Amino acid sequence: MKWNKMLHGGDYNPEQWLDRPDILAEDIALMKKAGINCMTLGVFSWSMLEPEEGVYRLQWLEDIIDRLYEAGISTILATPTGGLPHWLTKDFPEVMQVREDGGRNLPGKRHNFCYTSKKMRERTKEIDGKLAEMSLRHPGIILWHISNELGGNFADGACHCDECQRAFREWLKRKYGTLQELNKAWWTTFWSRRYTDWEQIHSPTPGGECLVHGLNLDWRRFVTCQMTDFLRWEKAALREYSSLPVTTNFMYFFKPLDYCEMQKEVDVISWDSYPFWHKEKDEVPMAVKAAAYHSMMRSMKKKPFLLMESTPSAVSWRNCNPLKRPGMHMLSSMQAVAYGSNTVQYFQWRKGRGAFEKFHGAVLDHKNGENTRTFREVAEVGLRLAKTQKQIVGSCNRAEIAMIFDWENWWALEDAAGPRLDINYKRVFLKHYRAFWEMGIDVDIVNMDGELKDYRMVIAPLNYLYKKGYADKVERYVESGGVYVTTCFSGIVDENDLCFIGEHPLGKVLGIRSEEIDAPGEEFRNLVDFHGKWYNTGELCEIVHNENGQTLAAYEKEYYAGSPAVIKNEFGRGNAYYLAAEFEQVFYNDFYGGLMEEMGIENPLSAKLPYGVTISERKGERDIIFLQNFRDENMEVETAGRYEETDTGMLWEGKITLGAFECKILQRMEGKVNE
Amino acid sequence: MKWNKMLHGGDYNPEQWLDRPDILAEDIALMKKAGINCMTLGVFSWSMLEPEEGVYRLQWLEDIIDRLYEAGISTILATPTGGLPHWLTKDFPEVMQVREDGGRNLPGKRHNFCYTSKKMRERTKEIDGKLAEMSLRHPGIILWHISNELGGNFADGACHCDECQRAFREWLKRKYGTLQELNKAWWTTFWSRRYTDWEQIHSPTPGGECLVHGLNLDWRRFVTCQMTDFLRWEKAALREYSSLPVTTNFMYFFKPLDYCEMQKEVDVISWDSYPFWHKEKDEVPMAVKAAAYHSMMRSMKKKPFLLMESTPSAVSWRNCNPLKRPGMHMLSSMQAVAYGSNTVQYFQWRKGRGAFEKFHGAVLDHKNGENTRTFREVAEVGLRLAKTQKQIVGSCNRAEIAMIFDWENWWALEDAAGPRLDINYKRVFLKHYRAFWEMGIDVDIVNMDGELKDYRMVIAPLNYLYKKGYADKVERYVESGGVYVTTCFSGIVDENDLCFIGEHPLGKVLGIRSEEIDAPGEEFRNLVDFHGKWYNTGELCEIVHNENGQTLAAYEKEYYAGSPAVIKNEFGRGNAYYLAAEFEQVFYNDFYGGLMEEMGIENPLSAKLPYGVTISERKGERDIIFLQNFRDENMEVETAGRYEETDTGMLWEGKITLGAFECKILQRMEGKVNE
Amino acid sequence: MKWNKMLHGGDYNPEQWLDRPDILAEDIALMKKAGINCMTLGVFSWSMLEPEEGVYRLQWLEDIIDRLYEAGISTILATPTGGLPHWLTKDFPEVMQVREDGGRNLPGKRHNFCYTSKKMRERTKEIDGKLAEMSLRHPGIILWHISNELGGNFADGACHCDECQRAFREWLKRKYGTLQELNKAWWTTFWSRRYTDWEQIHSPTPGGECLVHGLNLDWRRFVTCQMTDFLRWEKAALREYSSLPVTTNFMYFFKPLDYCEMQKEVDVISWDSYPFWHKEKDEVPMAVKAAAYHSMMRSMKKKPFLLMESTPSAVSWRNCNPLKRPGMHMLSSMQAVAYGSNTVQYFQWRKGRGAFEKFHGAVLDHKNGENTRTFREVAEVGLRLAKTQKQIVGSCNRAEIAMIFDWENWWALEDAAGPRLDINYKRVFLKHYRAFWEMGIDVDIVNMDGELKDYRMVIAPLNYLYKKGYADKVERYVESGGVYVTTCFSGIVDENDLCFIGEHPLGKVLGIRSEEIDAPGEEFRNLVDFHGKWYNTGELCEIVHNENGQTLAAYEKEYYAGSPAVIKNEFGRGNAYYLAAEFEQVFYNDFYGGLMEEMGIENPLSAKLPYGVTISERKGERDIIFLQNFRDENMEVETAGRYEETDTGMLWEGKITLGAFECKILQRMEGKVNE
Repeated sequence: MKWNKMLHGGDYNPEQWLDRPDILAEDIALMKKAGINCMTLGVFSWSMLEPEEGVYRLQWLEDIIDRLYEAGISTILATPTGGLPHWLTKDFPEVMQVREDGGRNLPGKRHNFCYTSKKMRERTKEIDGKLAEMSLRHPGIILWHISNELGGNFADGACHCDECQRAFREWLKRKYGTLQELNKAWWTTFWSRRYTDWEQIHSPTPGGECLVHGLNLDWRRFVTCQMTDFLRWEKAALREYSSLPVTTNFMYFFKPLDYCEMQKEVDVISWDSYPFWHKEKDEVPMAVKAAAYHSMMRSMKKKPFLLMESTPSAVSWRNCNPLKRPGMHMLSSMQAVAYGSNTVQYFQWRKGRGAFEKFHGAVLDHKNGENTRTFREVAEVGLRLAKTQKQIVGSCNRAEIAMIFDWENWWALEDAAGPRLDINYKRVFLKHYRAFWEMGIDVDIVNMDGELKDYRMVIAPLNYLYKKGYADKVERYVESGGVYVTTCFSGIVDENDLCFIGEHPLGKVLGIRSEEIDAPGEEFRNLVDFHGKWYNTGELCEIVHNENGQTLAAYEKEYYAGSPAVIKNEFGRGNAYYLAAEFEQVFYNDFYGGLMEEMGIENPLSAKLPYGVTISERKGERDIIFLQNFRDENMEVETAGRYEETDTGMLWEGKITLGAFECKILQRMEGKVNE
Repeated sequence: MKWNKMLHGGDYNPEQWLDRPDILAEDIALMKKAGINCMTLGVFSWSMLEPEEGVYRLQWLEDIIDRLYEAGISTILATPTGGLPHWLTKDFPEVMQVREDGGRNLPGKRHNFCYTSKKMRERTKEIDGKLAEMSLRHPGIILWHISNELGGNFADGACHCDECQRAFREWLKRKYGTLQELNKAWWTTFWSRRYTDWEQIHSPTPGGECLVHGLNLDWRRFVTCQMTDFLRWEKAALREYSSLPVTTNFMYFFKPLDYCEMQKEVDVISWDSYPFWHKEKDEVPMAVKAAAYHSMMRSMKKKPFLLMESTPSAVSWRNCNPLKRPGMHMLSSMQAVAYGSNTVQYFQWRKGRGAFEKFHGAVLDHKNGENTRTFREVAEVGLRLAKTQKQIVGSCNRAEIAMIFDWENWWALEDAAGPRLDINYKRVFLKHYRAFWEMGIDVDIVNMDGELKDYRMVIAPLNYLYKKGYADKVERYVESGGVYVTTCFSGIVDENDLCFIGEHPLGKVLGIRSEEIDAPGEEFRNLVDFHGKWYNTGELCEIVHNENGQTLAAYEKEYYAGSPAVIKNEFGRGNAYYLAAEFEQVFYNDFYGGLMEEMGIENPLSAKLPYGVTISERKGERDIIFLQNFRDENMEVETAGRYEETDTGMLWEGKITLGAFECKILQRMEGKVNE
Repeated sequence: MKWNKMLHGGDYNPEQWLDRPDILAEDIALMKKAGINCMTLGVFSWSMLEPEEGVYRLQWLEDIIDRLYEAGISTILATPTGGLPHWLTKDFPEVMQVREDGGRNLPGKRHNFCYTSKKMRERTKEIDGKLAEMSLRHPGIILWHISNELGGNFADGACHCDECQRAFREWLKRKYGTLQELNKAWWTTFWSRRYTDWEQIHSPTPGGECLVHGLNLDWRRFVTCQMTDFLRWEKAALREYSSLPVTTNFMYFFKPLDYCEMQKEVDVISWDSYPFWHKEKDEVPMAVKAAAYHSMMRSMKKKPFLLMESTPSAVSWRNCNPLKRPGMHMLSSMQAVAYGSNTVQYFQWRKGRGAFEKFHGAVLDHKNGENTRTFREVAEVGLRLAKTQKQIVGSCNRAEIAMIFDWENWWALEDAAGPRLDINYKRVFLKHYRAFWEMGIDVDIVNMDGELKDYRMVIAPLNYLYKKGYADKVERYVESGGVYVTTCFSGIVDENDLCFIGEHPLGKVLGIRSEEIDAPGEEFRNLVDFHGKWYNTGELCEIVHNENGQTLAAYEKEYYAGSPAVIKNEFGRGNAYYLAAEFEQVFYNDFYGGLMEEMGIENPLSAKLPYGVTISERKGERDIIFLQNFRDENMEVETAGRYEETDTGMLWEGKITLGAFECKILQRMEGKVNE
């Protein structure tokens, strides 16, 4: 898939206003004013497209697509499975999900379909086929948007119905072959949980089995597998007629579904981004989180992705929904682009009059038409994208550093009853990631299946579970000269969540032997001296024996004072670092800062960045540097080079001044300051 | 209904002691000592009155009524539907409620009947008829007390059974006629929720639909409607024989049921008041709340009401149940009277030996008979009521100011997913109300259906939903010279919870155009300068354009600094005030204080009241002024007049000294101080 | 039952490693190194012992028992009912519990069997019989361990299925004979709850009846009764063949089951102790709690008990699981012994590879064999037990003071809707207990059924419910010279939770008349002057009239200033003390400290103990004194005597110095310091 422009637009629900042609006409006029070139249609339109089973009403949709096309606006067309029509749920309750507690949902809400249900699949195939067939007649359509935010059922993302139970058992039979193998993998001799008949197996549930971690882990895998199969099913229905690319809109680090698996089925990654800006005065934690999400979306295919939804003003579903401050909409949009997005799409174009999202931020509100700050700020984004798209659209970030974020590890780690029950993978992961954000150095976020050799450094925090072959891959990587950083509570279990016995699978590479892990209470927190500076430790402190490496820092307090907390081990041509404890943020900044210096990696401006300012870079014919200021005040960055602003042509030498919440798009010019 | 005396008494459960004639005899003797003249019988007596289906045992009740009557004590007789007998629930489970989650309750507790159930209504009609027939023989009975605290099921006050679902659909058919109209009103095109068959409609439930606000709103209306219909059903059963007035005991601002609708079916308003005194040293917040509740009960019919329950000492159902401090029982009782009550009734006369309310405050405890502080304080109330009833009983408060408190607005506002999910109507409403309480100025509390023209000022905080015709009524009111105060997040939706589009329905009257509403986080709070003093703003800050009026205060901080926060608009012969933000309490005190001064409205003593002291006034042949001190220390009030204490005849000139927790009952004398 | 040695060992699950003979061999070798002499087998082995219904595979177990025996290690053999095999739950769902909400559990987890189920009992009898028959062939088996932690279902410990409902009704019929008696006892006239058919009775449930306290109380009694009946059933099955003693492992103060009743069925008490050491730097609160649990276990039979489970390092099921600091394992183990344990047993010997407890502390971890601090500390315990067992094994603590801790009181008290809903019996009880812990004076903990006359003082805090005959027993006790201390909210209800009327059942003994109980909020807290020192009061302040006694302290504030807070009443030859309020900890220390001085009771070292140090003493041929230091630093204790360390023979005169977390085992030598 190749577009030669940046997309700008969003979710559009004209079906709510079919009785108001004046409003539909105003929509198109204002889209043009706002620099919109692409709209998403059809999300949640099932009951309007198929008002009764087998009765299709597509004309209204076709008309809108054509009118948009005439106005120079493309269409991303959604399949409507995100919301089920009442005729379907009333007559075929089996299409609705059964909850973890065993109760079947009633009709309503979203994300309420069973992805296994034969009836659901039958009706899906029909409506998707109709849409695909129709699409051939409308050149305005450029992309399929399958369903919507799959799995977002505000619970475990799963259906527990009888059809799903049967499918789960079949999946297990295919995986294990015999119950003997399954019992071994799940360690069912514990607590007398041995299965003697496949029919005894049930999905994990609080009212029954939920403490057999192997079962829990396989169930999560199955849910991803089955949801992906549903995605594949919808794609196949479209492919009967259409060869247009497909996507489905992901959501952040979404625990119920392994996006690294699901993404294999789509042609382009897209996702919905809703950072909670202005939660506090310090916007950095939120900016870091958003940057990480964007980076992961890009890293999955190592290609530009699509920002499929974002709010032009505020959301309406948090407890407190502050308005985006002036400039933040531009900055937030450019941040997405900076990390690899080729679009800025919104939810939603116009606020509806009723129901749950009537106050959700939109380009157009209920009363003020174009006379709003929001509209003006959206139009500015449109203008800027149009000005810069030639330079940006073909470029993409290329990171030298990879961080491992793996769903299977996430599931197993947070399910473990170990030193703490509240271990938060994402929280710790983001502390490591933030060090690079603060330095303005791009990082790829990949799972354990990824190729490591493209990277100069690989970081794997809390890497509790090792997939089959992972330890070997890391060993080869370090041996060949790679730098590998990992932490306490890593290399504990294999792919079945069975503890490794005997020795640590990377013991030789890391040069350590681990004895025990402390989870010190608040009053027992420790600290270390690392290169002459003191750092507090956090929720975990592992007591390890340095068997071969160099102790860079040791614990200062408690009975394990003197025991190593940071160990460096040379292995082959590379180096491995073991961080035995969790640390406060500043440790990670200094630790990785030192490594970057050693390795000669720096940000694209070779600049020391003030707090709140970061850089991301898309490589292309000419590299595009995004210099972003997340502080609500002017900031200065000292550089040694000369840079041109891509959209304005303005030149900067040496010191660059950024306005509050400003993102500059820069290209390096030949020469240096004072040359 | 007209009584020439103040009632004093409470809930009496002699059926728990029928095997103890000594105790029943002691009861009557001590009632006389305590100045009791009215007892409530029969609440929860069903299993004693009808031990088996169709078998009635009323004699014990008749005997008690007669013995009370002989002792000069009237009876308020309850219908027994507050508690279901086991024979009914065992054989006819359909009389019990089905919860929101779809499960049917088991027998037990209270408030557990389905108000729609045919069986329930059949048995209710029978027992109520028997009681009504019996009542003809007993002149002691003066009032019917239908059921008990209807809807208080500790959940949503509703039944979700199949009979109710059918009744709901019939109610909707009558309201909307066609599904097309219903789909339009509920905006069901959103998320593909269009109904194509009435049978698809189900009450809102967390396991199904709960995000279609139109459905949620209509369901709440239906619940009130159906509960009111049950009340009407009980009244009709009584009316077969009895023409005595009826009431049902309400509870505070009770969200599940729109009391403004229900009150139409009763002859006199009664309610159960349980303020949490001594929760903190500052009793003002609680006194304000209690005053508001009393005021609303009075305002519904603009007539005296009945305090039907209150505790003589402590309650037993809060986490922490402190004893009423000396004097608080008198003050709390007089406060009810001050705002319009013609009774002081207690729950309960005597503590039972077993089950849930055995420790609930009572006039008599388990062991000490009349030898308790509680008994003595109750007797003092009896004495004081007897002394003052001639002056008080025919009088009633007449307010010049109305505040709008409307259930439909409450439901819609707090269901909205808007700038905040935690908007608390009652909390904000009480901040406005408190300004008047602190000034000692009476306020009526009415809903949007009320007549406005009787009032000099109308205040409508967070008036999110406008009922049909409301905007027109307000426009006429202001045009004719009324003063109207409203706030941000008002005039947003119509009676179907559909957003107004185009313009604010009171835009011309208020002189504003609203652009967006901020819900600033803690670190982003704003402030305004109003008449030279600084005030903090609260959880909402609306950004409005002053189109026509006078900006009285503007925001000081954030990007909307300088934007108007308080706007006055002259319209016709009146004035409208728009408070664009929520403010801290002192702003409301000063804002309304200034308005009162401008309008020449003052409290009955024309006095500046010290903190913790307030005044309420009942108008009659001679006006009765209740000067209340909610502080646990002596307080002084400077007046310019001469006053006589109604019960003691004591005279006060100029300065009046109040004891700790004292309420003085005063009448104005001719002349002024020093005349 | 009489053993001549201290047991040291724990739960062993060789069935998880049957395919790893190398590991099984290592196990036995390392057990010897660690001084292990007794292992618990068979907990949760059902699915390995009976893989299909009626098919038994016991050989693996017999082999292990024999191998252990050959190595000098005894076996405690568990019946396997703690965990149900899938073949049983799949085909006979009735063996699984029904929850309070009416739903039946699915297969899985632990503690999931219905103790009433006929099928469950049938299968239990079969497997227990097989084990008992087998046991005759293996002299290594020394004790039966019936099931595991009965009732620990993470809920109310109960099953609510139809079989249980029927059994409950039969139990009630036997207890009450007629519904009339039951209605009277449960005070069902309240809220119209009168039962007219036994079939109307249902266990308490949030969805039905839960506010009839008599029902709640009888249900809890029934649950204990039925669980005890199941225990008896298992014992009977074993007794068909085996005459070995039986136990079942209890857990702390476990509210769902009245251990004082259950213990009647076992030959020796055993329990599982998991104090949360290192939760905070101050270990005293946890040490006090653990000491109280141990004391109660000992007091039930007034004999040594068995510590059946404890962790050698950390647990894995708390939110945060810190490692035991060096020394704490020895101290915690010796603490158990100090209060009467004749064992130190662990859960678990070796960490499993999978499922919920794979990280639970064990003697052996996954990788390090004997090369761990944990292993070494376990071996030290083994060595010390071996050295001291001759002195210790036949001795037992003999207290002069008893504290009443009674399950029926616990149930009724915390179910009461009285002055507070959050009254915490255990919290208040432990404040009294802690005074003695800090003084180093042993206390027995018994229920109301216990014989009082063996004690010089009896303490009964929050003794809300009086069992039949209890008041008479106390009266005789005080009359005959006993000292009785009780508190506010005592003597309120009889055995049916019906309030006493007329007068306090111990009014004459205590010399008081109680009028009312205040539950003052935070801002209303009171204080008293007791012997010239000020003490804060807590959550309850009773206002009592001193009718006969001596007021030792009075309230200082509030309207009840001057009202007595501590009253002493001489009655017969004894004294009664009434503490009308709850106080801060230091009051109890000083109050009981004074009493001890008066009564001439002191700790075995006659020493004033520094904070964190305590003493417990086992009486035997020679008394054994356990001097325990719960502080992580050296502490000194001044004594006037000469003592010998039992294990080392080291002598101490006068000052004894304790290391951090040290427990000294001492025996008094003739003579005094400087003699």
